[in-house]
Amino acid sequence: MSEQNTNALFLGPKSENHQFFRETLNMLMDEHIYWRRDFHPDDKACISHKEQRTEDFCATMDNIQEALYDLSNKLKNSSMPWFSTRYLGHMNTDVLMPGVLGYLAGILYNPNNCAYEGSPATTGMELEVGIQLGTMMGYDPEKTWGHITSGGTVANYEALWYARNLENIPFAIKSVIPTFFGECDDWQLLNLSIEETIDALDVVKKEGLLTEVLKDLRYTGCDSDKMGKLLIPQSRHYSWDKAVDIFGIGSKNLIQIKVTENYRMDIDHLKETIDRLIESKTPILAVVAVVGTTEEGAVDDIHKIIEIKEMYKKQGVNFYFHIDAAYGGYARTIFIDEQNKFIDYNKLKTRLSKENFINKSTKWPNRDVYEAFKAMPHADSITIDCHKMGYIPYPAGAIALKDKRILDILAYNAPYVEGKNDPLLLGPYIMEGSKAGAAAGAVWVTHRIIPLNITGYGKIVARSIEAADCFNDRIIKMEPFVAANGKKYIVAPLTMSDINIVVFAFNEVGNVNLDKMNDINEKIYNRCSYVSGPVYYKRFITSKTILTTEEYGDIPYSFVDDLNIPRKEWDRVQKVFVLRACIMSPFLANNTSFKEYWDRFIKIMQEIIDE
Amino acid sequence: MSEQNTNALFLGPKSENHQFFRETLNMLMDEHIYWRRDFHPDDKACISHKEQRTEDFCATMDNIQEALYDLSNKLKNSSMPWFSTRYLGHMNTDVLMPGVLGYLAGILYNPNNCAYEGSPATTGMELEVGIQLGTMMGYDPEKTWGHITSGGTVANYEALWYARNLENIPFAIKSVIPTFFGECDDWQLLNLSIEETIDALDVVKKEGLLTEVLKDLRYTGCDSDKMGKLLIPQSRHYSWDKAVDIFGIGSKNLIQIKVTENYRMDIDHLKETIDRLIESKTPILAVVAVVGTTEEGAVDDIHKIIEIKEMYKKQGVNFYFHIDAAYGGYARTIFIDEQNKFIDYNKLKTRLSKENFINKSTKWPNRDVYEAFKAMPHADSITIDCHKMGYIPYPAGAIALKDKRILDILAYNAPYVEGKNDPLLLGPYIMEGSKAGAAAGAVWVTHRIIPLNITGYGKIVARSIEAADCFNDRIIKMEPFVAANGKKYIVAPLTMSDINIVVFAFNEVGNVNLDKMNDINEKIYNRCSYVSGPVYYKRFITSKTILTTEEYGDIPYSFVDDLNIPRKEWDRVQKVFVLRACIMSPFLANNTSFKEYWDRFIKIMQEIIDE
Repeated sequence: MSEQNTNALFLGPKSENHQFFRETLNMLMDEHIYWRRDFHPDDKACISHKEQRTEDFCATMDNIQEALYDLSNKLKNSSMPWFSTRYLGHMNTDVLMPGVLGYLAGILYNPNNCAYEGSPATTGMELEVGIQLGTMMGYDPEKTWGHITSGGTVANYEALWYARNLENIPFAIKSVIPTFFGECDDWQLLNLSIEETIDALDVVKKEGLLTEVLKDLRYTGCDSDKMGKLLIPQSRHYSWDKAVDIFGIGSKNLIQIKVTENYRMDIDHLKETIDRLIESKTPILAVVAVVGTTEEGAVDDIHKIIEIKEMYKKQGVNFYFHIDAAYGGYARTIFIDEQNKFIDYNKLKTRLSKENFINKSTKWPNRDVYEAFKAMPHADSITIDCHKMGYIPYPAGAIALKDKRILDILAYNAPYVEGKNDPLLLGPYIMEGSKAGAAAGAVWVTHRIIPLNITGYGKIVARSIEAADCFNDRIIKMEPFVAANGKKYIVAPLTMSDINIVVFAFNEVGNVNLDKMNDINEKIYNRCSYVSGPVYYKRFITSKTILTTEEYGDIPYSFVDDLNIPRKEWDRVQKVFVLRACIMSPFLANNTSFKEYWDRFIKIMQEIIDE
Repeated sequence: MSEQNTNALFLGPKSENHQFFRETLNMLMDEHIYWRRDFHPDDKACISHKEQRTEDFCATMDNIQEALYDLSNKLKNSSMPWFSTRYLGHMNTDVLMPGVLGYLAGILYNPNNCAYEGSPATTGMELEVGIQLGTMMGYDPEKTWGHITSGGTVANYEALWYARNLENIPFAIKSVIPTFFGECDDWQLLNLSIEETIDALDVVKKEGLLTEVLKDLRYTGCDSDKMGKLLIPQSRHYSWDKAVDIFGIGSKNLIQIKVTENYRMDIDHLKETIDRLIESKTPILAVVAVVGTTEEGAVDDIHKIIEIKEMYKKQGVNFYFHIDAAYGGYARTIFIDEQNKFIDYNKLKTRLSKENFINKSTKWPNRDVYEAFKAMPHADSITIDCHKMGYIPYPAGAIALKDKRILDILAYNAPYVEGKNDPLLLGPYIMEGSKAGAAAGAVWVTHRIIPLNITGYGKIVARSIEAADCFNDRIIKMEPFVAANGKKYIVAPLTMSDINIVVFAFNEVGNVNLDKMNDINEKIYNRCSYVSGPVYYKRFITSKTILTTEEYGDIPYSFVDDLNIPRKEWDRVQKVFVLRACIMSPFLANNTSFKEYWDRFIKIMQEIIDE
């Protein structure tokens, strides 16, 4: 089999593959058109040619076309040019052609994956994709389960739903079968391992008491005073703050774990926090880690969390562990070989440089990032967004579970049906109801073409990491430069990102005022975003974020220090405005023209900085 | 302006409008292709012609096309033929061409409506659509707010989120400003009207204390023991059962209100329940009514609920009132004239029959249904699914609020920004995060073409109601018929649906065994669904439901009685298996060939019944 050519997978920044795209979309459309015609070929048409020639018929069609032109105009006037290498902002770039064409094809058939009956074709695809994603996370394909959500936010909610209900399950079992756990006290019941809880549920199921236990579980509702704590790093996505509100948990039960200098969860602080909770006999609802923070691209040290999780297990303390890998999930494919094995560190380094994925000079991945990705299958569930690093159009988030038996606690109709060929109602096991089967079709067809390993997705994601590394490297090596306004400027990166996000800021040489520095960068952002008018006329487009002491403590100080801002300024202003580039584009890496790209970028900055 | 021709709005059961569809999709696709090319025309291509001719490039493209053919094959093999008049099952039919083409166009640009920055074009459309839907519900366009959700389930969750947080707001205010409510006791605080609560929040906002109040609100979390009761009819959608679990409310706080013989909420039972709650000083979290129950198409007597709501208000008892009109929402357009006024009853009847929307013989709407739709703007929020009676592809649910100031309680970043031209971050005000702007484009462009009144959507929905009425009428008038097996059968409808759902069942003449009758109908369903193989080869496709005493008490008894099943059989079996046809097709009504359609339907039934 020929190697995958990444450039053939996208429509391209200049619609380079437009002939293929047009031909294939027309094929898919015609397939649908004739499918309708061929359903009971003898059925008569409902609309006659004669009617099609009438005045009101033609006028209605004119209206449709005019309105669609107007929609097209609006889309063209102010949509974000994700496809271009001039766009380095949010988690967007060009999407994969099979993904977009698969999505378009799916929408023509309009399946609803809520119930098998509404989508015999695409429900199966969704479940298949779920197992693929679980397997990609290192879960046992026989035990994992996953599905597509409208986005990572809903996937995170579902994880919290599992965690909260799993915490309550032992009490529901005890209430139905008082002798079930023998002499266990409440603290012990709150500290059963997830496996023990699911095993208990299995016993209950075999005894035919599942329905009764679920009834009890759902009857009680929430008591936020008795609920355990949710431990999550400061760098978390804000959906977690919405989550604790929605689930009735309350922010009082959300404990923010500090981050280290590289914006990863501070493991010492995590340990201290857990010790403190154990001391006061406060249960832990869940620990959540992030693989690919949305602001900094940091990868939490999953392996270290697993290590302490094992340590506490020996002390009889257990908790649910979820990974929010909405952004970073697909990056795990880089570490997986053609036999679906996690590649040895040295072998990986060799392959990455030998097979020309990543320049020899690139140090990625360092040992921590490697070990973190390796340890992921120890988590109870993982959020992975196909519409982020899966390069699929919106909406297509996803969640994967280690142990599909967890579904029993959600079942809103019949208990979970075993076996993959059984028609499965998704609705009773998920937060959402009606949902597009088109998303499943898009992901399914893309996974068919692009293996979830180093030869497929790994290659695409590695290219983006390589590009980010080049970008970061140029920033570090950048000498002070003179802008069009005659002043001199420097630029520095926030940190070495663990994947492909580069956060950076400019400062005027000699400036020691943080407000002024923030102002310089805010102005750059304004000129490089929708803020100052349609992006179609921008020469560079990026995104921004603000790092505050409230969210990050003094961690960002070392960064402002790199830009020659003194400590007392940091203490005074307590926030830094930064530019944020998620470098997902597959068209920047291994590119002999990167120098040209960088020169153009700096030229634009020179011209617009403080103009 | 010419009248809208409904047949010109759909691709058609036989792809009758395929030329238009193909031409327009190609136009939209080319617009996108050239948009990319025209973004900085001097930027070089990233993929060369030479590379496009290489072996691996061609092989990759071959892979994409082969996989997409495979996807297409699977879609064609087992997708539901919603478009055909042979499909009368779930809430599906052909979708509107502007909706599907708008969706396809949107996906090409892949906007993300979570943040304005990801979708300058489509965020505005989503907010515009939100106001349109609110206005369609009778809300003041200046005060309403709405947005698109992934589905009705999430819209219902959001309503419960508002209701639960509004109940807690007075306590949060009191905690921050102890003197705010003077001498009010807890019972009074629990019974502030929604308006009073929002007004109080406005005062707090003006005093600059909103952030502090929200912090307090979110800090506490849920205590299901202190939480009020959620009152909802037995006929509710099962998403409400998931909702009370997710929100930590617990099923103990969900009170099912009985339904009447026509499957509408029993107002007397509602009143008794409220009286009982007042007596024990138990607060009411919310009352939820349904406009278009998913099983029976029943429309709850909204006007009567509003009446008693006003009555209790005088007694100092208030509650949040939400309408789940996920299915029935768009039917309100039938009642709205060109000047956006709710049409007088007699004038409506005249227009419906004179303008040939509905046959003169059709009694729809009866006075109750009319008054129910009229009273809808008194609700605090309403769920309306564009992907149901809005004839838009999945996913496109929606919620509309009477008073947009409610958003203040959700704001997860800056407080709500006033004014429609302000770039608005949707993310902080909604449950979901990343979300397709394509859905907004689809609904927006469709609303541009099809007015949300009797001349536009009203005409389409009325056609479906007319078809349901014809179908129902034929069932009622149907004489006992002889099937291919030589036995005689009768058929009866469950009730006169309030909109366009017809539920019915067959029985063998002389059979008085309910198990046997259930078996007859289950077998029909099996033969008319995916259960017995690909639906592409079915001659008729429908859906089913089971009405049980557990869910409905003895209400279904009168129906089984119509089919000559004695009372003792109902008491013994306690459930009836029925066929359920949501008649959304615009191609059945006002159709001179309805007789032909019915004859074919009965012929199919004769052949497959008990074969």
